[in-house]
Amino acid sequence: MNIENLSRNKSFDGWHKQYSHYSETLNCDMRFAVYLPPQASNGDKVPALYWLSGLTCTDENFMQKAAAHEVAAELGVAIIAPDTSPRGDDVADDDAYDLGKGAGFYVNATQAPWNRHYQMYDYVLKELPNLVESVFPVSDKRSVFGHSMGGHGALVLALRNPERYRSVSAFSPISNPVNSPWGKKAFTAYLGTDTESWADYDASLLMQKASQFVPALVDQGEADNFLAEQLKPEALEAAAKQSGYPLTLNRHEGYDHSYYFIATFIAQHLRFHAEHLKQ
Amino acid sequence: MNIENLSRNKSFDGWHKQYSHYSETLNCDMRFAVYLPPQASNGDKVPALYWLSGLTCTDENFMQKAAAHEVAAELGVAIIAPDTSPRGDDVADDDAYDLGKGAGFYVNATQAPWNRHYQMYDYVLKELPNLVESVFPVSDKRSVFGHSMGGHGALVLALRNPERYRSVSAFSPISNPVNSPWGKKAFTAYLGTDTESWADYDASLLMQKASQFVPALVDQGEADNFLAEQLKPEALEAAAKQSGYPLTLNRHEGYDHSYYFIATFIAQHLRFHAEHLKQ
Repeated sequence: MNIENLSRNKSFDGWHKQYSHYSETLNCDMRFAVYLPPQASNGDKVPALYWLSGLTCTDENFMQKAAAHEVAAELGVAIIAPDTSPRGDDVADDDAYDLGKGAGFYVNATQAPWNRHYQMYDYVLKELPNLVESVFPVSDKRSVFGHSMGGHGALVLALRNPERYRSVSAFSPISNPVNSPWGKKAFTAYLGTDTESWADYDASLLMQKASQFVPALVDQGEADNFLAEQLKPEALEAAAKQSGYPLTLNRHEGYDHSYYFIATFIAQHLRFHAEHLKQ
Repeated sequence: MNIENLSRNKSFDGWHKQYSHYSETLNCDMRFAVYLPPQASNGDKVPALYWLSGLTCTDENFMQKAAAHEVAAELGVAIIAPDTSPRGDDVADDDAYDLGKGAGFYVNATQAPWNRHYQMYDYVLKELPNLVESVFPVSDKRSVFGHSMGGHGALVLALRNPERYRSVSAFSPISNPVNSPWGKKAFTAYLGTDTESWADYDASLLMQKASQFVPALVDQGEADNFLAEQLKPEALEAAAKQSGYPLTLNRHEGYDHSYYFIATFIAQHLRFHAEHLKQ
């Protein structure tokens, strides 16, 4: 495994580090960040929480703005934050912020020109954990969480792979992308106009027919500008009711779509995951 | 007072807000940020902690990256973060990151072309608190803290105005700017080549002859790239010893100059200030 360390910062007695590696899945160089809690220096393997960011983000937004390190250090949980799309000069892109680079939507693209690099679903599901578990003192006890587009990604990954994740959570997820402008635009580009293929990447459609359950926590701000048009948590709630899915969905008066909202509730998410990761 | 609200985000039951106003001291429009803890909504005035950022920063860096809101909300203390220099198309600038915009060094410039706008010392000492105390439920119980160039600014403000501040703290301050390349370059430009005028803006020189004391806390990472050449905490320590100044200076193995270091120790600084602000 060829992996290059780009930076390191001590944080709450653990380490935040950025790495670059060549991804065979994505066919390009990729950067990711990891927070290793102090317990990872003792030789023991620590469980892993994978964070998926939202539109326009990189591996940096969560690490810098979510205020997650203190509680991760206390709980002894590693956090791994990949980038939100393939990167590089030869990677297809679009001028819009919600398509192309920074907007991979955690799907495996089937349509040209996107299919050459945009295989973020496989990257986050398989290649990245394989790499992380082979290089760091991080175990295969995994949970996944994310924000907005990354909340969509986290829910889809856990719903389709309940054997691989102990728990899933999301802040302000795009809960029903086949019915949101962001989702329709991205899925049309990446997956084509045959909307049947979209269902594999829609958390509400997946939850509705789920029979294997991964405990799920969702937090949503009620002053979120994107709530009604793009996020549609009510679709996820209705789906959970249909399948009896163990979903906890909290709404918070006054909170918006920003990292200030995430930071306010991040400790609750970390404790929720640690409870399931340590079983 | 003409003041325009630019943004608001709920955070830990309080509010992060950005404002723009015309500064008569700086002769230009300025932006600043404030975190108002939930206690500020009860009609009571809360004490105020002024944060001064380092080179290249704006009002945003601290609010987004320092993870300070949770403990500020618990303690009931407001945090006010000004920008690091005057701004605008007609404001003198330099291509370097350590002079001009983003690098005001919290001095009152006496040299052209800088003296037309670069009056950050007076802005932070007088105009900004006057504005804040007239517009927000924020009292005149003030403390001041900052990072790097802002740590220098905080120490200088408190040392020269002990009657205005209850306590002062700094992360990785430029402790002896008259002997650091950053300080020499900025002071030569803003204050001129007569180095006698520089002494009013050097925390170590001021602390050495101090007779009125503001309790002072400094934290410094030992893996900080700027430690030996630019920061020189040993000069501050020697000065405190000479005047008997109540300075607590902690060194931390492995920590660097970044906001990850600040976030790790921010709660200790907030509790230190709250203790003095609530007396």
